[in-house]
Parts: sequence; C-alpha cells; structure tokens
Amino acid sequence: MQHFDLAVIGSGSGNSLIDERFSDWNVALIERDPVFGGTCLNRGCIPTKMFVIPADLAASPAEAKRLGVDLRREGSDWRAIRDRIFGRIDAVSAGGLDWRERSENVTVFHGEASFTGPKTLKIGDDEISADQIVIATGSRPRRLDLPGLDEVADLVYTSDDIMRIDKRPQRLVIVGGGYIAAEFAHIFGGLGTDVTLINRSDRLLRSYDREVADQFQHLLSQKVKLRLNQALSSVEREGDGIVVVTTDRNGIEYEYFADGLLLAIGRDRNSDALNLAAAGIETRSAGQIRVDAEHRTSAPGVWAMGDVSSDHLLKHVANAETRTVQHNLLHPDDLQETDYRYVPHAVFSSPQVAAVGATEEQLRQWGVPYVVATQRYADVAYGWALEDEGHFVKLLADPSSWHLLGAHIIGPQASTLIQPLIQAMSFGQRVPDLARGQYWIHPALPEVVENALLGLLAAHQPAELGK
Amino acid sequence: MQHFDLAVIGSGSGNSLIDERFSDWNVALIERDPVFGGTCLNRGCIPTKMFVIPADLAASPAEAKRLGVDLRREGSDWRAIRDRIFGRIDAVSAGGLDWRERSENVTVFHGEASFTGPKTLKIGDDEISADQIVIATGSRPRRLDLPGLDEVADLVYTSDDIMRIDKRPQRLVIVGGGYIAAEFAHIFGGLGTDVTLINRSDRLLRSYDREVADQFQHLLSQKVKLRLNQALSSVEREGDGIVVVTTDRNGIEYEYFADGLLLAIGRDRNSDALNLAAAGIETRSAGQIRVDAEHRTSAPGVWAMGDVSSDHLLKHVANAETRTVQHNLLHPDDLQETDYRYVPHAVFSSPQVAAVGATEEQLRQWGVPYVVATQRYADVAYGWALEDEGHFVKLLADPSSWHLLGAHIIGPQASTLIQPLIQAMSFGQRVPDLARGQYWIHPALPEVVENALLGLLAAHQPAELGK
Repeated sequence: MQHFDLAVIGSGSGNSLIDERFSDWNVALIERDPVFGGTCLNRGCIPTKMFVIPADLAASPAEAKRLGVDLRREGSDWRAIRDRIFGRIDAVSAGGLDWRERSENVTVFHGEASFTGPKTLKIGDDEISADQIVIATGSRPRRLDLPGLDEVADLVYTSDDIMRIDKRPQRLVIVGGGYIAAEFAHIFGGLGTDVTLINRSDRLLRSYDREVADQFQHLLSQKVKLRLNQALSSVEREGDGIVVVTTDRNGIEYEYFADGLLLAIGRDRNSDALNLAAAGIETRSAGQIRVDAEHRTSAPGVWAMGDVSSDHLLKHVANAETRTVQHNLLHPDDLQETDYRYVPHAVFSSPQVAAVGATEEQLRQWGVPYVVATQRYADVAYGWALEDEGHFVKLLADPSSWHLLGAHIIGPQASTLIQPLIQAMSFGQRVPDLARGQYWIHPALPEVVENALLGLLAAHQPAELGK
Repeated sequence: MQHFDLAVIGSGSGNSLIDERFSDWNVALIERDPVFGGTCLNRGCIPTKMFVIPADLAASPAEAKRLGVDLRREGSDWRAIRDRIFGRIDAVSAGGLDWRERSENVTVFHGEASFTGPKTLKIGDDEISADQIVIATGSRPRRLDLPGLDEVADLVYTSDDIMRIDKRPQRLVIVGGGYIAAEFAHIFGGLGTDVTLINRSDRLLRSYDREVADQFQHLLSQKVKLRLNQALSSVEREGDGIVVVTTDRNGIEYEYFADGLLLAIGRDRNSDALNLAAAGIETRSAGQIRVDAEHRTSAPGVWAMGDVSSDHLLKHVANAETRTVQHNLLHPDDLQETDYRYVPHAVFSSPQVAAVGATEEQLRQWGVPYVVATQRYADVAYGWALEDEGHFVKLLADPSSWHLLGAHIIGPQASTLIQPLIQAMSFGQRVPDLARGQYWIHPALPEVVENALLGLLAAHQPAELGK
C-alpha cells in the first residue's frame, strides 16, 4: 500500500489546493472522471457563461429595435459556438492534467475512490493510505426516476451533457426553477430555440428576494413559455422527438412536444460512492459531508470542502474554502474558518440577477428592523440610455447602524454592479458614507446603486434626503 | 431694483442647488439659454450616452461574429433615435423650467446676466441685487477661427448641435483627441458613418494613463480612420459637402472630403460675458473663476461652482460642488470643502475607459514608489466568455501602505467595474483586504479587478501570491 502525506479526492477545487506550498508533500490526487478539472471548468460556471454571451448577442435585436437600430439575427452556429467553447475548455482541462501528471510530488490516480478504513482509500486495484485526506468530490445534477425515461434517454439531458450536443433543439423543455434552469432557458431561448420552462412550484428563483424573483419570472415569461405548478409525470418518444407529460395540482395532464428535455431540478452531493462509513465520516440530511468551521470531518485527518460539504454550491465559495483548507493543512496549530457572512450569488440569465445578504422576507421572518429602497434603472441617466424597463436595485439596511443587510439587483450588469455592495457589507461600511463619501461617475450605471443608497437614507430621514 | 436673498446664474447644477432647504429664501435663477437645465442634460453627458447605447448595438455584429452569432445591421434610424432621445430630454427640460417657474420662492430670469457692481446683476432690462450670488454658468465647446469656416458654417458642428442634426452624415471628420471626440467617433462610427478623427498631437486621451491611451488609440483605429499630428488649416465647400484641409508637422497638406465637420477641441468656461470685473471677481489662466476651497470667489458673497470654476469638467464633480455650496450658503459659520481626492472619469466610447487616481506617468514624475499590475480581461473566465481581446485593468498601489494610487480600466463595463476601486481609494481600504476580504462572484466580470489586486500583491511578494 502506497502511503502519502496528503490524498485529495477530486480535481476541481481539489486540484487548486495543491499549490507550490505543498511541493515537499507527497500527494495523491484522485479523479474518477475522464475529464480533469471538475464541474466549474468542464460542465458548470465557465462553459455556461461562454454560451450566455452569444445568447445575449443573439437576443439583442429586440433591444436594438426599441432603440432605433435594426439588427437582424441571421442565425447562430451552434456547432461553431460549441466547438469554440469546448476547444478551449478541453485544452485547458487536458493541459491541467498533463501539468499535474508532471508534478514531481503529485501522483494522479484515475478512478473512483472509496474509503477502506479511517485513513485508507481504494481506487480500482490500488489501495493507498494518507496522513491527511481532503474530500472535494463536488456535486452532480440530480436525476429523476420517471416512467418512460429509459426509452428516451438519448433526448434527456442535464447540465452535464446538454452543452455538448451536436444540434441545438428546435424545441426544448426545461424542468426546474433554479438558476441552472434560468440560465439554460436564456442560452437556448436567446439562440432561437422554442423553450418551455416547467416548474413544480409556483415560483422561479425561490431563494431570491421575492420582488426580484417575481420580476425575473415576469420578464422571463416574455421570452420563454413558463408553465408553473406542474410536475413531470412521464415521458415518451414520438417520432424524432419526445412528449413530456405533466400534471398540475388538480390532476390535469398536459403534454409538451419537444426535441429534448433538460432536467435542471437540483444537484446532489458526490458523497454516496465514497464508502464514508468505513472511515467514520458523517453526512448531513442533504448528503453533505458534515464539517466543522475549520473543514474537519468527523474523522480525524479527513477534511472536506466545496460542493460535497458546503451549503453553498458556488465556485467562489469553494475557492475560499480551498484557501482555508490549504492554510489549515499547512498550519495545524492555527486553524482558520471560512467567512460565510456575505456570500454573493448571481444568475446569468436574461435578465441577470445578483444578490448578497438577506432577503426582505428573511428580515421580516427574523424580526430584524430594516429600511428598504428600490431604485429603478429607468430613473437614472444610464437607464434612460438603455431605455430600460423593469430592472431595479433593491437595498435593505439597518436604520440604526446604517449597515447594509441585503442587496438585490435585477438587470444589465447586475453581477458587476453588486461588487461595491459586497465590499461595503464585508467591511462594514455605512450607507451614508457609501452614498456620499465617494464619487459615482455620471452618467454611468452605478448611479443606480448610488440612488438606491440615497433612497435608503430618504426612506428613513426624509428631511435630509442624503444631500 | 429687485432684491433677492440669493441669485443663481445658470440652470444646470445651479438649478439643483435651489432645493427645499431654500424654500424660505427669495431666489433669482437666471438662464440665458432658451433651453433649461444646462449642458449635462441638454447637450452633454446624458444625450451622448443615449446615443452611445444604440451605437454599441449597431456595432455589435462584429463582436457577435467572433462568437458564432450572425447578426446583421440592416440600418439605424437616426431621426427616430434623435427624436426619441430629445423627445425625452426636451420634455424633462421643459418640465423642469415649468416646475421652477411655479416655485413660489424662485423668480426665473431669461437672459444673459452681467455684473454691474459687487452684488448687482443686469439681465436685459432687469437689474437685481442679491445678498448671495452663485455663478454656475458652465462651459461651452471651443470654437475655432479658420479660413473658410463662415462659408461652411452649416456643415460645421460642435457637441452642442451635432446630436440634433436631421441626417446622419455619410462621412464625418472629427477634430480633437479628448473624450468628446472619442465618444462621437464611436457614436457615428458605430451607427455606420465613415469617421475620420484628426488630432493635432500624436495621442488621444492624453490625460489618461499612457498604456490605456495607447491601447485605446490602437483599438479605435480599427474602427475609424485616425490621422494624428495634423492641424486644421482651412475648410471649403465642395458640392453638398466640405473639404477639410490639414497640415502635418512637415508642412504637408492633406484633404478630407466629408458631409460634416465636428469640432471637439476643448471647452471654454462661460466666464467671459459676466462682466466679472465690475464685481471684482478674478479668473484664472484658462478662464476659470478663481474660488477658494469653500467655493468663495474673490468677491464677498459671490460663489462659483461647476465647469465655470472647477478644474474638473464633470457633472459628478459639479454635483459634489453643488452640495458643498448648498451647505456653505446654509451654514455660513461651518464652511465645508469639496473632496477632490479621488475623482473618477470615464470615456463612453468603444472601448470604454474609466480611471481614478494617478497615472503611472504621474507617479514616476512625482517619484512616488509604486507597484503595478495589469490584468487582461482575456485571462479571467468572463473574459473567456467575451472572447475578449485587448482589454485590461491596470492598478497602481503603494507597496508599503497597500493603498491604491490609481486604477485604469479599458474594456466592457469599465465605468461600472471601477466603482469598487473608487470606493477602496475613497475609504482607504488596503489591497490585500480588498482582494481577499470579500467575495468576488465567479465567473462575473469583477474577477478581472480581483485578479489585478492579486497581481499587485504578487508583484510585490511573489511567495505569497495573495493566497
């Protein structure tokens, strides 16, 4: 049995963990996927955004028309887009593996790892032991058991495979109501596919602030067909396509004809194949590996990070957790915790959404006193330029301390506009200082944030108006 | 002679000054233009940005093509764009005047104001006196004396009038090298005009960081014809058009045929028609009214603010100065100063440029120690998605205090991306804290700023790499 100082399971954030500070550690890196580099690079954040931008452009003629510019979409070359994107990503992935296999101190194992004891792992025929083990096996799209599914398996996709298909479907049914469903609705809808989005509950983006989620739903419904309160009941093949059958709350059935079905119904943690019991590693209700604030599992010397253990399925959180675990491995007498206070998140759909901190519903539920201000893009100069309709910034603040409690943005550049607010919350900056202690370029889009901040002040102290 | 508590000359920032806190002041507001509301609203920041967005869209087919989307520009309806923009702006301007004329405590005078004594003004046949006078007369496009100019006056424009023309010129010559020339080059070039940009010196955007200005020039030169080191020598009419004759440094003459000539060669302060001498009000070399840090002119009780006195011809600075003058009028025993430490500015051209703080050339000249990092958009995930080429964030910092000294961005969303850096500089936040004390959404565009910050740390302490 080969012995290592450190074994890392998973080549996504797990691979990043093994930086030059571990150059005198003897490290095993284990990856079960043929593809190296994890979800974010290969099947997640990065390729999706690479599809979102072409979709943004392909969808722009409608916006252009409102502004007096006659653009016509002559077409979009799905294969060319796909090949450009994965030509680049696959090369990065292969290069990463190649580079890693040439790392003198790292041995790469290809295969599924499972625990055989507290500090031992089996990968195929190999068995290894390690003083420290880091589990970073991530998550995967949730699958569904559904009558007829096996017969149409070639037309049923998840985010893992739909970006690699050969032909963009003419008609696509997407099932789900979270950010993945929302992003793919835009990607395919923007590029010209007739998209029907089906969701079991009555709302999309349920974890977002209610007003933002409602408006998102309203605006998305102008671009794709939304069918809410319907559950999948079966699928069957018809001709070259698929019939998706749903049932609403009254038991009424609906049929949707499409060329493909995308399941975007959630993600499951990759904790189930690891034989965690052999090492005494506990999991939580949703399959997350249980870790303490320092990322230690219930088994000594075993750590977990990223999607497999985190409450946040977000790469920027996984990156922060990676830095914490790196530090903790290197400084066992000075363990650190990851800071989860102000974790932002975004939906790269159309419109874009970004948020950080509490929603208004949460503050109400928690009984936290707050002031709220909503600033429409349409009412600042850059919003005039955009002829904006329906986008806004919503801020929540503590009127006694003037700290921001939550920031919610729906509209162009939302994922960029939110950064000064993340910064303010992370460093405890106060609303009046933020609004008036810095310049906001006129007439740039951040004025919508400036005005939302002034709106908070006005909401609380009308006489001052932040002037 | 009517007497007022306060007379304000200029209805741009001057109009904003008179808020509800002055409701028990008897105020005169004087405007010589038929149009109410000043440059920013009527002829400046706002309408230009309203033209920039259609131009962005009209220019997008080239970008789309690189990304696999076939967009075609069928045309752009100049008159529809113009009428939409000024339909909106003119209504705001007229509404503003109407509202102001109904303000009980404000008397609006239409006409040119000139001083007749220390606290007295003449407007046409009216003569008024006021305890306090605020000069906020702004600036205007610089005119030029040029052989032949009178004969082609109908084809020679400035930023004041070119946005209102009836027909977009097929061929336009723009003279100038600053942000106004750069923005109009994009507006007209983007919408399909054949633009030739002529500049006397060898560089555009001379006040910007050299690397940014050079790259801007390089990228703009792919879209419009750049002719540098040429001075205007004469113009003449030819057919329906104009011949613009220039001379280079060797005395060689060049001729450009166009349908119009836009002069964007700078702006002059509107201080010359005020008969300032009668009130003992001094000006500075470029015609700015001399003010102290509290905006007092050399004449007691007379204040100045905005373009007419400021070193910054920027509306967001004028707004800040307005707030200072408001405060100082209302609190004569507690005078405040405007904070000019971190004044950002942007160029809404293609590409967009934004900056705050010192350029690298300034730091070198001042002998200030610094570290510098340049982060290409192309090397962060969102830049991959954009298939970005040639855009970057350049940061300069003090390696001992880790305070930012300058931030310079060229590329998409530059005027939004810069805000967290303005915020950091204004509040003295340190580079390592900024980089790692907050989350940066992956894979949103602000990662280009995050990586530039990490680049600063790496430049100085390679062993740490900001991890």
